[in-house]
Amino acid sequence: MNYVAPVRAMAFALDAVADLSENIRTGMHERADADTIQSVLDEAGTFAGEILSPLNRQGDLVGACLKDGHVTLPAGWRQAYTAWRDAGWNAIDLPEQWGGMGLPTRLAAACMEMWTSACMSFALGPVLTQGASEALLFHADEAIKALYLPKLVSGEWSATMNLTEPQAGSDLGALRTKAVPVGDGTYRITGQKIFITYGEHDLTDNIVHLVLARLPDAPAGTKGISLFLVPKFLPDAEGGIGRRNDVTCTRLEEKLGIHASPTCAMSFGENGGALGWLVGKENEGLACMFTMMNRARLYTGIQGVAVAERAYQQALAFAKLRRQGRAPGASQACPIIEHPDVRRNLMTMKALTAASRAIAYAAAAAIEQAEHGSVALREEAAARAGLLTPLTKAFCSEVGVEVASIGLQVHGGMGYVEETGAAQLYRDARITPIYEGTNGIQAIDLVTRKLPRGQTAATLFDEYEGYGRAAEKHADPLLGRTGAAVCEAVTDLRRASAYFLQAETSMEDRLAVATPYLRLFAVTAGAAYLAKGALTAAERLKQDRHNSFLQDEIATARFFAETMAVQSFGLARAVMNGAGVLKTGCVSDFACF
Amino acid sequence: MNYVAPVRAMAFALDAVADLSENIRTGMHERADADTIQSVLDEAGTFAGEILSPLNRQGDLVGACLKDGHVTLPAGWRQAYTAWRDAGWNAIDLPEQWGGMGLPTRLAAACMEMWTSACMSFALGPVLTQGASEALLFHADEAIKALYLPKLVSGEWSATMNLTEPQAGSDLGALRTKAVPVGDGTYRITGQKIFITYGEHDLTDNIVHLVLARLPDAPAGTKGISLFLVPKFLPDAEGGIGRRNDVTCTRLEEKLGIHASPTCAMSFGENGGALGWLVGKENEGLACMFTMMNRARLYTGIQGVAVAERAYQQALAFAKLRRQGRAPGASQACPIIEHPDVRRNLMTMKALTAASRAIAYAAAAAIEQAEHGSVALREEAAARAGLLTPLTKAFCSEVGVEVASIGLQVHGGMGYVEETGAAQLYRDARITPIYEGTNGIQAIDLVTRKLPRGQTAATLFDEYEGYGRAAEKHADPLLGRTGAAVCEAVTDLRRASAYFLQAETSMEDRLAVATPYLRLFAVTAGAAYLAKGALTAAERLKQDRHNSFLQDEIATARFFAETMAVQSFGLARAVMNGAGVLKTGCVSDFACF
Repeated sequence: MNYVAPVRAMAFALDAVADLSENIRTGMHERADADTIQSVLDEAGTFAGEILSPLNRQGDLVGACLKDGHVTLPAGWRQAYTAWRDAGWNAIDLPEQWGGMGLPTRLAAACMEMWTSACMSFALGPVLTQGASEALLFHADEAIKALYLPKLVSGEWSATMNLTEPQAGSDLGALRTKAVPVGDGTYRITGQKIFITYGEHDLTDNIVHLVLARLPDAPAGTKGISLFLVPKFLPDAEGGIGRRNDVTCTRLEEKLGIHASPTCAMSFGENGGALGWLVGKENEGLACMFTMMNRARLYTGIQGVAVAERAYQQALAFAKLRRQGRAPGASQACPIIEHPDVRRNLMTMKALTAASRAIAYAAAAAIEQAEHGSVALREEAAARAGLLTPLTKAFCSEVGVEVASIGLQVHGGMGYVEETGAAQLYRDARITPIYEGTNGIQAIDLVTRKLPRGQTAATLFDEYEGYGRAAEKHADPLLGRTGAAVCEAVTDLRRASAYFLQAETSMEDRLAVATPYLRLFAVTAGAAYLAKGALTAAERLKQDRHNSFLQDEIATARFFAETMAVQSFGLARAVMNGAGVLKTGCVSDFACF
Repeated sequence: MNYVAPVRAMAFALDAVADLSENIRTGMHERADADTIQSVLDEAGTFAGEILSPLNRQGDLVGACLKDGHVTLPAGWRQAYTAWRDAGWNAIDLPEQWGGMGLPTRLAAACMEMWTSACMSFALGPVLTQGASEALLFHADEAIKALYLPKLVSGEWSATMNLTEPQAGSDLGALRTKAVPVGDGTYRITGQKIFITYGEHDLTDNIVHLVLARLPDAPAGTKGISLFLVPKFLPDAEGGIGRRNDVTCTRLEEKLGIHASPTCAMSFGENGGALGWLVGKENEGLACMFTMMNRARLYTGIQGVAVAERAYQQALAFAKLRRQGRAPGASQACPIIEHPDVRRNLMTMKALTAASRAIAYAAAAAIEQAEHGSVALREEAAARAGLLTPLTKAFCSEVGVEVASIGLQVHGGMGYVEETGAAQLYRDARITPIYEGTNGIQAIDLVTRKLPRGQTAATLFDEYEGYGRAAEKHADPLLGRTGAAVCEAVTDLRRASAYFLQAETSMEDRLAVATPYLRLFAVTAGAAYLAKGALTAAERLKQDRHNSFLQDEIATARFFAETMAVQSFGLARAVMNGAGVLKTGCVSDFACF
C-alpha cells in the first residue's frame, strides 16, 4: 500500500510541541507564515505519496547495480528524482542567496520525514546533498561556494560524505587517505573509502564528494584531518561538466536493507590522484564535517520516525482488513484490529512514533533557534540542540526498528513473507542505529560532553516537569495519569543524571551506563513533549469537544506516559546498578562459556 | 565463524537450574546417568559445531528451491542429515520401544538448542518430526504406530504439521480442508494448506503429513476438526515406499530468513483426493495437535535461546578482534571489547541468553516431570509446564530477536553487510515470535487459561521469592543486589497477577495487557532461575574460590537482576494502567492521523 503523509499530526507536532507558529509569530522567519507552512506540507505529502512511495518496493527488489564503474538505480528513479528536484524540494531551508527557499528547518525536517516514509533509499541521497551544502556554506571559500552551491542547493548535483575507511569507522583519527598540495590551492587525493552512501549513481550528472584526508605534515589522530571537495567531474569555467576526476566506485555492499541506496567503496587517485580543493582550514576538517554530521544525525533520527510511521500505517491497514478470530463475545470472524492485543500493538506503534516525532521536531526547533532565533537566546538553543541531537539520533532510530518489528508481528505469518513489505521496513530500519555515529557513541556524547555542560539539562528537566505538573492540574479526564507519570519520570531522570555528575563516578562507569541513561532521558522527553501537545489539545477541546483528532492526540500522550514512561524507574536502576558488574569476576575478559 | 556449543554452561543450567541430576538421583530416569548426559552433550556439541554449523551460511544464500513439485535443499544438506540421523540424534528422548534412546527431554532440549544454534533452518525439520512422533505415540492406533513410528523416531522419514490455511491462521476454527471417509478406515483429503515447514524436501525418502481437516458432518469451529495422517508415499505392506499420494507442494514462500527451511503451500487432493488415516477420535483433532504443539512451542523458545547464543558468540569473537578507538587513558587502538559500552552490549546479550535458557530448561523439566516424575507430583508438574510453556515460547523468542539485533549492532557497519552473518541471525530469529502461536496468543493463553488455574502460579512465585531471599542472605559479595532485585520483581509480579484475578477486571482488559504481563513474569522468572544457579555457584566457589566459570555464572545472574529484572516496576504499571486508554477517545477505531 502507498504511504499517506500524516499532515495533520505533523502540523500539530510542529506547532504544539515544536513551537513553530509561536516562533514565526515572534518574527523568527520573515518569509514563513501559516499558509506557506500548510501548503508546503500538503504538497510534499502529495508528492511523497504519489511519486516516491511507489518506488519503494521496486527499489528493494532491484536495488542499485554496479557495472564497469557505473551505478544504476531502478527504472523510474531518475525521473522521480528530477521531478522532485524541479519542484524545489531539495532546498526548503537552504538560503535564498543560493537558490533555496529559506523556510524553517523544522519544516524541512517534516518534509524529510515524508520522503523517507515514502522511500527511505531515495531520501538518503538528499540527506547527504543538503548536509554537504551546509558544510560548504559555513566553511568553503567564496569561489567554491559560487561554483558548487547553486548546483547542490537545487539538487542538480548531489554530494557525499567520505569518512569511513576499513580501519577507521567510529575512530576517524585512524584514517589514512592522503592529500598532497600541487600548487594553486589544488590537492591530489589518494586513498580508499568504504560505506559511502550514494557514492556513485545515475540520478544526477555530477557528484561532489566531501572527503576527509591527511596532509603530508599533518599531526596524528583527529587533529590532523582536513576536508576536501573532490567532484566526480571537474566543473568547467561556466560551472558545467568538465573532465572526469580520478575517483571510482569499486564495489557495492550487499546489505540487509536499503537496497536501492548505493553503499559504495570509493577509490581516489588510482591514476595519479584525484583533484581536490580544501574546505575550511588545514587540519580542521573534523569540525567542518561535524556541521554536516549534526544535520545527518537529526535526519537519521527522522528516518526512524519515518519508518515507524510507515510501519504503523501498513499494520493499521492490515489490521482493519484481515479477519481472524472473534472478539470477546462475538460469533463472526472480525477484523483483527478488534482484538485487544492487536490494538495494544497498534497503540504502542502509534505512541512510539508520536514520541519520537516530538523529540525529533523539538531537536530541529533547537537547531533552528540556534541559527535564526533571537540573538540573546541562541547560545542556550545551541546547548539544547546539543542535548537533543544525540537523543534524536539514538532513540528515534531505535524506535524505527522497534515499531517496524511490531508492525511485522501484527501481520502474523504474512509479515515474514517479503511480499507484504513489512519485512522490508524491518530490514531498512536496522541501519539507522548504526550509521552517523552508532547509538552507543551518541550515548557517550550525551553523558560525557553534553550533559555536564552548564545548566542546560537541569533547565530542560524543569521544563519537562512543568508539562507534567500542568497535566496533573488540568481538569480533562482524558489525560488520566499522564501528568503524574511525566513527573515520576523526571524524578528518575534527575536522580540518574546526578549519578553522572558526582565526582566519584569514574569515566569508565559513566561510559558503561550511557546507553540506558540515554533511553531514560528519551522516554522522559517523549512523554513530556507529548504531554505538552496534549495540553494544547485539551485546551482546544474546550471549544470543540467532539474533535476526534484532538482526543486522539491526548490518548496517545496518555498511553505513552502510562505504559512507557513508567520504564523510567527500571532504567534509572539500570544506570545506577549497571557499571559494577562489568568489572566483577571473569566477565572482565568474557573468557568463559 | 563456526558455532562452539557452550557445553559447560548448558550442563550447569540443566543441573543447577533445571534439577536434572537431582531428578536422576531420585530415580526419574533409569537409563540416564551423569556420564551419559555429559557424553551426549559433548558429542552433540561436536556434531553441531563441525557438521551443521558450516551449512548455515550456504543455506541462507542458496535456500530451498522448488522445481516441478520437487524441493531441493543446498548441496551437502542431505549427507549432513543422513549423518545426523544415523548418529541417532532424532531420537534422544523418544521411547525405546520405538527405537528411541529414552533419555531426558531436558537433554533433548539442550541438544535441540545446539542443532538450532548451528543451523536453524536445518533444525526445523526434526522439530516437526519429533512433534509428530509424539502426537502419534499418544493418539494413533497400534497399526499406524507400527507402520510409521519406527521410521519417524529414527528420522528415516520426516513429518509435518498442516494447520494453517489462507483464511485460518491463528483461528484454526475457520479451516476448510475436507476429509471424506471411503471405507476401511481410509479418508480422502482435499484442501489447501500454507506455511507448511518442510512440507516438501529431499532429505528423506518419505514425508508424513499430519493434517487438520473437517469430516462431512463435523460441527462448525474448533469442535469439528479431526487429525489425519497423509503420507507423501503410501507405505507398502513391509513399510517400504509404495505409490505416490495425491499431495503436492505448489509454492515456496519468499521469506525474510530461514531460507533453507522450505515453507510450502501444499495442495491435497487435486487429483481425486489424498489418502489419509484418522489419528485419535473424530472431531478431536485439535487436542491431538496440541500434543505436538506443546513440544513445538518449547522448541520455538529454544530456537530463541539458540539464535541468541550464536549471536553472542559471533559478537564476542568480533569484539575481541576488531580494533577501533582507544579505551579511556590508552593511546593505541584497542579491541572494541575494551570499550565499556561494547562490554555492556555483550553482557546484555549474555545475560538475556542465560535467562532465556534457564526458563526454557525449567519448562522442559516440568514437561518431563509431568510425564516421568513421581506419580504424586505429575499433576503439579503439568500445571507448572502449562505456565512455563507460553513463557518460554514468547519470551525466549523475543530474546532471540533482541540479542540478534544487539549482535548486529556490536559489528557496527559490518553488521549491516550480509557477509558477516550477523544480519542472517537477525532475519532468521524474526519468525520465532510469530509461528506456533504468535506471542500475543501465548500471552492470552497465559492470562486466560494458565494463570487462573489453581495455586500453581502462587506456588511458583513463592519458589522465586525463595531464591531471592536466599541470595539476599548469602554472604558472597559477588551476588551484589541480586537477591533484593529478585524479591522486588516477585512483589511486582504478585501485584500484577492480583489485577488479573480480580473479578472486576473485564476479559477485554485482561486481553489488552496480557503481553506486558507475560514479559513481567518472564523477567522475574529469568532473574529467579539465574539466582538459583548463582546460589549453587556460590556454594561451589567456597571450595574453589578462583573458578572463573562459577564467578561468571554469578556475574551473569547479578547483571540480569540489577539491570533487567528492575524493569518489573514499569511492566507492572503497564499492566495496571494499560487497558484504560485503549478504550478512550477515537482510538477506538484508530481512525485519525
